[in-house]
Amino acid sequence: MTEASTTVRRGRPRNEQAREAILDVAMESLLAHGVAAMNMDAVAAAAGVSKATIYRWWPSKETLAMDALYRTWESAPIAPDTGSLRDDLRNLLWPWTELIARRPYGRVIAGLLGQVVTDPDFALTYRARFLDQRRDHGRMILQQAIARGEIPARTRIETVLDMLYGPVYHRLMHGHAPLDHIFIDGVVDIVLDGIHPRPDRQPRHETADSETP
Amino acid sequence: MTEASTTVRRGRPRNEQAREAILDVAMESLLAHGVAAMNMDAVAAAAGVSKATIYRWWPSKETLAMDALYRTWESAPIAPDTGSLRDDLRNLLWPWTELIARRPYGRVIAGLLGQVVTDPDFALTYRARFLDQRRDHGRMILQQAIARGEIPARTRIETVLDMLYGPVYHRLMHGHAPLDHIFIDGVVDIVLDGIHPRPDRQPRHETADSETP
Repeated sequence: MTEASTTVRRGRPRNEQAREAILDVAMESLLAHGVAAMNMDAVAAAAGVSKATIYRWWPSKETLAMDALYRTWESAPIAPDTGSLRDDLRNLLWPWTELIARRPYGRVIAGLLGQVVTDPDFALTYRARFLDQRRDHGRMILQQAIARGEIPARTRIETVLDMLYGPVYHRLMHGHAPLDHIFIDGVVDIVLDGIHPRPDRQPRHETADSETP
Repeated sequence: MTEASTTVRRGRPRNEQAREAILDVAMESLLAHGVAAMNMDAVAAAAGVSKATIYRWWPSKETLAMDALYRTWESAPIAPDTGSLRDDLRNLLWPWTELIARRPYGRVIAGLLGQVVTDPDFALTYRARFLDQRRDHGRMILQQAIARGEIPARTRIETVLDMLYGPVYHRLMHGHAPLDHIFIDGVVDIVLDGIHPRPDRQPRHETADSETP
């Protein structure tokens, strides 16, 4: 095998090439058929590897599906600090939404959720990859805005994160309305107007219950 | 069989009793095991009917699961017109959220979503029951508030509906944070502050793109 130091861009180690080929084929199969109908024999054949090779890295098709989806979603860029909360939140949501709106990712997530609700270990890994990491970015963006004095320190950050990601997941999973730019801008506008300090704010808002930490 | 007119409250027709027994047993099984693991033989035995009886009414376990879930969720009351948008929205969301937060309904939905994403006919029925009906209530509440002058006529109603229901579904499906009263009040507060007219509103908000009808 060639030296990694000289071939890092032109030729990847064979293991790495096989992994990438498997993940590519798996993602196409998932988008076309969903997790339940994904066939490991077909993935192995299309990727040019043995089924034993796949099972050496992924103990189940759900774990392979999770890795394939993760690699795709992580390609959506995040630019965390423009100095404007509105721009930061749009940058957080839009590239990812644009990516998932193009293909039937809802089908893939639905299949993985079936495993999430029956397998607690899988659920932990799934949430760490698909929820926690994106929530961490969003939380950082909101905390920067608090530090700049752009939004109040009492802002319910966890609730706000659900109000940014929840509507996107809702349309992705249920398919009742389009995941377009107008929708994302509307979500960001309503959230921002909802948490900005307001001169006409009623006292009841000022004393709203704080979140559980 | 007794006459329906005289027995409507004390004794239901036998068919109706069998239907209710099947739906009760199915719901318990769904909450305990999920759709994938629901066993029609076990449901028939526990409900005291033959499997043929079940299949006469429900062609698949997914359709039985959908009816069982629908009957349970529809028991969450909605009081649509208190004259206050905040109270109307809390009444819309809280009884339903309280119901679904008590048991593992996320498991049932995950199983049904697997069918939604592979079966377009099932998806239509599913959305009509679980999404459209609740969205219709929410839309009516928002339109009443517009008619009262409580919120602007330009309010992006479809986006607002996703910002009310999306966060609840998000926590239900992914289980990353509690579905409690503080959360629901926070969602309603942020949405209301986000769509209320504001004296300090920037011009860019006034000219925001309208939704596709």
